[in-house]
Amino acid sequence: MTTTIKPKPRERLLAAAEDLFYTEGVHIGVDRLCDVAQVSKRSMYQHFGSKDEVLVEMLKLRASHVMEGLDTAADAAPRDRILAVFDSLAAQAMTPQFHGCPFVNVATELKDRTHPAAVAALGYKLELNAFFEEQARLAGAGDPQALGVQLTMMFDGVSAYSVVRGEASPAARSAVEVLLAAQGI
Amino acid sequence: MTTTIKPKPRERLLAAAEDLFYTEGVHIGVDRLCDVAQVSKRSMYQHFGSKDEVLVEMLKLRASHVMEGLDTAADAAPRDRILAVFDSLAAQAMTPQFHGCPFVNVATELKDRTHPAAVAALGYKLELNAFFEEQARLAGAGDPQALGVQLTMMFDGVSAYSVVRGEASPAARSAVEVLLAAQGI
Repeated sequence: MTTTIKPKPRERLLAAAEDLFYTEGVHIGVDRLCDVAQVSKRSMYQHFGSKDEVLVEMLKLRASHVMEGLDTAADAAPRDRILAVFDSLAAQAMTPQFHGCPFVNVATELKDRTHPAAVAALGYKLELNAFFEEQARLAGAGDPQALGVQLTMMFDGVSAYSVVRGEASPAARSAVEVLLAAQGI
Repeated sequence: MTTTIKPKPRERLLAAAEDLFYTEGVHIGVDRLCDVAQVSKRSMYQHFGSKDEVLVEMLKLRASHVMEGLDTAADAAPRDRILAVFDSLAAQAMTPQFHGCPFVNVATELKDRTHPAAVAALGYKLELNAFFEEQARLAGAGDPQALGVQLTMMFDGVSAYSVVRGEASPAARSAVEVLLAAQGI
């Protein structure tokens, strides 16, 4: 016997938002969001002030999940932790469901860095950058700050490559290894 | 005395498309496009089959202009020609008008690689990749093919960085130099 416990409206809205904003873009309407979430508009506005609030909340949740995922390998060597991020990205980037980094996409589509969702996207990218920089520091990189930025750029470049081409390239990992080696890692 | 020669409807549509698709996104409507171009819808459909055709034609024109721009420095050293692309990108990326690579943006926003405009975006990226690969080959890179891909990724990563942060970083150029040095350039 299978028991299906239906998530509550708030959770359904966040789940629908995660899917729709990624697969259809940031400009989906409230009707579409409520339709997929199976939540009335009245109920949506009881839980969130606006569609943008759903978007921001979803991005913050997603960012915290991603960063928690990076924390699970805390006992691995810093260099391996950096490379694992890129290996995970490459695995995702090869799937048909991949449409790039959801945070960069939101910033790209909004074209307004003052928008609360663009600010949330920036917040995530700063966290990812800080993760790379911290691992670089722990590994003894010559310039952890620059390496953190370079790895963040490479991460987004690998994503864009797959968005445009629909495939991944082994040249990505070798580029990361080159950037690490140049810093003595 | 100033004489202003107003461009023809076709040119006005392409100019408006270049501006609007970049600053507002790929999902702008036909009304908005015709409004900014000061062209009637009837006239638009006389020149193009659809809004998507305007988009595709604009992307192809823009791609050919970018690639022609790269050709003007044909007498420079291959390594300098590669670095010049990144210096030019950094200069653009620091301006408030910068919203990323228009071709990546189109692919990101469409989320459909079979769309003719996504195919045009891919075409441009392949040309840019080929340019990098050719310069890498001329400069004597160990693996010009891999380096071409890596530089294309770095180009898009630098763009994404500025889209999200609204600023450029000198770590971009040093990353490119590291990637070149690793190939003996």
